[in-house]
Amino acid sequence: MATAAVSYARENQKRFLEELKELLRIPSVSTMEEHKSDVQRAAEFVASELKRIGFENVDIIPSSGHPLIYADWLHAKGKPTALCYAHYDVQPPDPIDEWTTPPFEPTERNQNIYARGAVDDKGQLWMQVKAFESLFRSGNGKLPINVKVIFEGEEEVGGEAIAEYIRKHGDKLRGDFALVTDTELFAPELPTLCVGLRGLVYTELEAVGAMTDLHSGVYGGAAPNPLEALSRIISKLKDDSGRILIPGFYDDVQKPTDAELKAWKSLPFDEEHYRKTEVGSMVLTGEADYPVLYRTWARPTLEVHGMPGGFVAAGAKTVIPAKASAKISMRLVPNQNPDDILKKYESFVNSITPKGIQIKIKVHSKGEAIVVGTDNKYIKAATEALHDVFKKDTVYIRSGGSIPIVTDFENVLKIPSVMMGLGLPDDNLHAPNEKFHIPNFYRGIEAIINFFHRLAA
Amino acid sequence: MATAAVSYARENQKRFLEELKELLRIPSVSTMEEHKSDVQRAAEFVASELKRIGFENVDIIPSSGHPLIYADWLHAKGKPTALCYAHYDVQPPDPIDEWTTPPFEPTERNQNIYARGAVDDKGQLWMQVKAFESLFRSGNGKLPINVKVIFEGEEEVGGEAIAEYIRKHGDKLRGDFALVTDTELFAPELPTLCVGLRGLVYTELEAVGAMTDLHSGVYGGAAPNPLEALSRIISKLKDDSGRILIPGFYDDVQKPTDAELKAWKSLPFDEEHYRKTEVGSMVLTGEADYPVLYRTWARPTLEVHGMPGGFVAAGAKTVIPAKASAKISMRLVPNQNPDDILKKYESFVNSITPKGIQIKIKVHSKGEAIVVGTDNKYIKAATEALHDVFKKDTVYIRSGGSIPIVTDFENVLKIPSVMMGLGLPDDNLHAPNEKFHIPNFYRGIEAIINFFHRLAA
Repeated sequence: MATAAVSYARENQKRFLEELKELLRIPSVSTMEEHKSDVQRAAEFVASELKRIGFENVDIIPSSGHPLIYADWLHAKGKPTALCYAHYDVQPPDPIDEWTTPPFEPTERNQNIYARGAVDDKGQLWMQVKAFESLFRSGNGKLPINVKVIFEGEEEVGGEAIAEYIRKHGDKLRGDFALVTDTELFAPELPTLCVGLRGLVYTELEAVGAMTDLHSGVYGGAAPNPLEALSRIISKLKDDSGRILIPGFYDDVQKPTDAELKAWKSLPFDEEHYRKTEVGSMVLTGEADYPVLYRTWARPTLEVHGMPGGFVAAGAKTVIPAKASAKISMRLVPNQNPDDILKKYESFVNSITPKGIQIKIKVHSKGEAIVVGTDNKYIKAATEALHDVFKKDTVYIRSGGSIPIVTDFENVLKIPSVMMGLGLPDDNLHAPNEKFHIPNFYRGIEAIINFFHRLAA
Repeated sequence: MATAAVSYARENQKRFLEELKELLRIPSVSTMEEHKSDVQRAAEFVASELKRIGFENVDIIPSSGHPLIYADWLHAKGKPTALCYAHYDVQPPDPIDEWTTPPFEPTERNQNIYARGAVDDKGQLWMQVKAFESLFRSGNGKLPINVKVIFEGEEEVGGEAIAEYIRKHGDKLRGDFALVTDTELFAPELPTLCVGLRGLVYTELEAVGAMTDLHSGVYGGAAPNPLEALSRIISKLKDDSGRILIPGFYDDVQKPTDAELKAWKSLPFDEEHYRKTEVGSMVLTGEADYPVLYRTWARPTLEVHGMPGGFVAAGAKTVIPAKASAKISMRLVPNQNPDDILKKYESFVNSITPKGIQIKIKVHSKGEAIVVGTDNKYIKAATEALHDVFKKDTVYIRSGGSIPIVTDFENVLKIPSVMMGLGLPDDNLHAPNEKFHIPNFYRGIEAIINFFHRLAA
C-alpha cells in the first residue's frame, strides 16, 4: 500500500531518526534514583511531540514512581479504537566500559543506531509517534481510526503506576485492541507477531550473618558468611540440568498446543548458529529434554542477576561481609500463578537457609504469563500490514520475556494485544551495545500506517 | 621501669596522638589504583619523621607496587639489632555509609580513635616511631640497641615488594630478631604476645559464560549463568559443617602441642559473649568438633569475600551476566604448603565447574602459616617489658590472621619475630568504624621503650 502517509514517512526518515537520537540522549534509567529527573524529561519530550503532531488531551500523569503519558484522538466515528502502548524508560547501561560508543550518545554504524533504549523501547515508541505524525499530516489532521496513547516510564522496574492506573481508570483507556511495540522479529527480514509472553517474579534475597563486617583471618571458622549461604541456597534452587527444585513449581505449567509446537519446529532456527553468534557460549544449558525455543518460550526458568555484598572492587580484601544479597528472578509460563509460585519459593528458600543466617525476601515485581489468540481481526490486519512492508508471510512466535501490561490489557481491560515488534534477536537488549536496525525503524513506521489504514477500510 | 624515655613519652602523648591523626588522614588504600599517590604521600610522611627524630640512611625504596621505607641507627656496639616492621597501607573503607564518622577523618570517642588504619596498622607503626623518638631524645641522640626499620605499603595486598626485597637484600635487613607491631591483645588489659599466624591463599575465580550480557527473558533457559556456576562451585567447597571438601586439603595439617591446647583452655574466653558482642550472629559456624580458638587459630578455613558481576545496584535488572567472579581465600595452618594447597584447590575447582563455563583462577597472594618459639631472649625481654606496663603476666596466643612477612623473617632471614600488638578484639579491623584504644597506643610506646632497654641491659 503506497499511501500518502507512507510517502510522507519516507520523505521524513532522516528527521525522524535525528529526533529519535534526541530522545535517546536522555538517560531515563527508571531503576536509578539519580536519573529520576531524566525520566521526567523524557516524558516531557514525548508528550510535547504528541501535542505538536495533533493529539488531544495530552497529559503527563504523575505517579508515586515515574509518570504515565496519555493522549488521544477520537474523531474517527464508527472506526475501531486502538490503545497504543510503549515505554520511554530504559535499563541501566552498566557494564559501561563494554560499550563501543557511549550508551547515551546515539551513534550510527552499519545501518544500526547504537544506544541504551535504541530498540527497548524508545526506538519502537518513536515508530508509533512517527506513524501517527505521518497519518495526521497526510490526512488533513485526522487519523484513520481512533487512537488512545498510553506510554509508561516504569516498564523496566515492574510497571506499578500503569498497573494501578489501568485498574482505576479502565474506562478511559479501554479500546478495541492494544498495539504494543516492544518485541522483535524472529529473524532478520521475517515479519513476526508475538502472541505469547512469559510471566516474571523478581526477588532479592537479603542475607544477614554477623552484625558487622569481620576480618576473615580473625573470624574465619566461626562467623557465618552470607555470600556462602546465598551460594548454598542458589545451588539448591536448580539441579545440574536446569530443572527448578522448588516443590510444586511445575504443578500448573500449561503445555503449548500441538499446532504451536509444530509451527515452532518449522521456524528457521539453527541451534548451533544461535549458540555461537547469539549466546556465544561453549554449550547451551537448561532442560535438555526440551528444544531451545520450547524452553525459552514455554518453560519456566530461574536466573541469578547479581550478588551485591562484601568486596566487589578490583583486588583483594579479606572481609567476611555482615550482609549480602542475591537478585533472583523466575520466568513463568501460562497457568502458573505468580503469587502461588512466590509462596512456594519463599517457603523453599526458608527451608534451605543455612543456620546462622537471617533471610528477608524482597519482591521487586511479579506478573503472569500470557498467550493471545491469532484468530481476531486485529492480528489479521497486522499480518497483512506486515506483508505490505516485508512482502512475506508473518510467523507467530512467543517471547521468553515478560510484558506484564499485556496481561493487564487481557485480564483487566479485556482487550487483545497486537505485539508488533521490529527488534532483532542480536539487538543486545539490556546489555552493552544495544542497537536498533535503522531500516526496521522505518519499516515499523510504515507497518503501523498500513495497519491502521487496513483497520479503517 | 620509669626511665627518662618513658617520662618523655608521657609528656608528649598529646602531640604523638595529633601526629598520628595526620597520618590517618592520608587515605593510603593500597588495593585501589586511584589511591596510589596517597600511599606514596603516607610513605613520605613516615620517612620524613624517621629522619627528623634521628635515623640515618632513611630511604623510600620504590617498587613495582608501593614503596618500602628503610632507616637505621647502628651505633650501639655489642648490643643486639632489632629489625622493626609495620605497614602504612590500609584496607579500603567500604561499606562507607556504615562509618559513624568518616574513615579518613580520625575522631576521638570514648578513649578510642576511630579511622581506617587506626589500629591496622598506622597506629601501631606510630607506636614504634614515637618509642624511637623518646629513646633518641632522652638518650642524647642514641638508641639503647641497634635498630633497622623496614615499613611496607603493600601489606593489605600481599606484600610483594617486601618479599622480593628480603630475598634480594637479606644482608642489609638481617638483625637478631624482628619486632612486629600488627597484632592484638587477647583481651583488654591482658598483655599478649602472638606466637602463631595462619597462612593465606587468596584467589579470584573468574567465570565466563556467554560472550555478552543477555536478557534473562529472551535467553533464560539456554544461556549459561556464571553467577549460578560460581554459587554451585562455592557450595561444593565446604560441607554444611564448614569442613573443606578439597581432596587432600587436610593432609599436612599440624596439630597444636598439648601444652598450647591446655594454655588456650585457660584463657578468659566466653563463647557466648564472643558470639553476641564480637560476631553478633545467631550462631557460630564452622567445625563444631573444635573449640572456637582452636578453629580460628589452628584450623584452616575458607571464605568468600565478594562476587562481582551482573547487576549489583539497588533495584531490578533482568540480566544474565556474561562474566562474574568470586573472591575466595583460604587460611592455612602450620605445615600446609600454599603452593600444594593452591594446586589441590585449582584441580578441584576445575573438576566441579559446571559445563558451559570457563574458569580462570587468579592468585592475589599466598603465604604459609608460622609458629614461633617462646624460648628465646627476645620473647623473654618482651614479656618483661609488657609486665612493666601492665603489671600482669603475658599470655601467648596465636592469631587466625596472616602476616606473611613473619614467615619470611623466619625462613629467609632466619630470625625470630616478636609480635607485640596492642589492638583489641573489637577494634573492627578491615570493617567500618575501625578504632584504636588510645591508652593502648601510649602503653605500646612504653612497652617498646622498656623492651629495648631490657635488651640493652
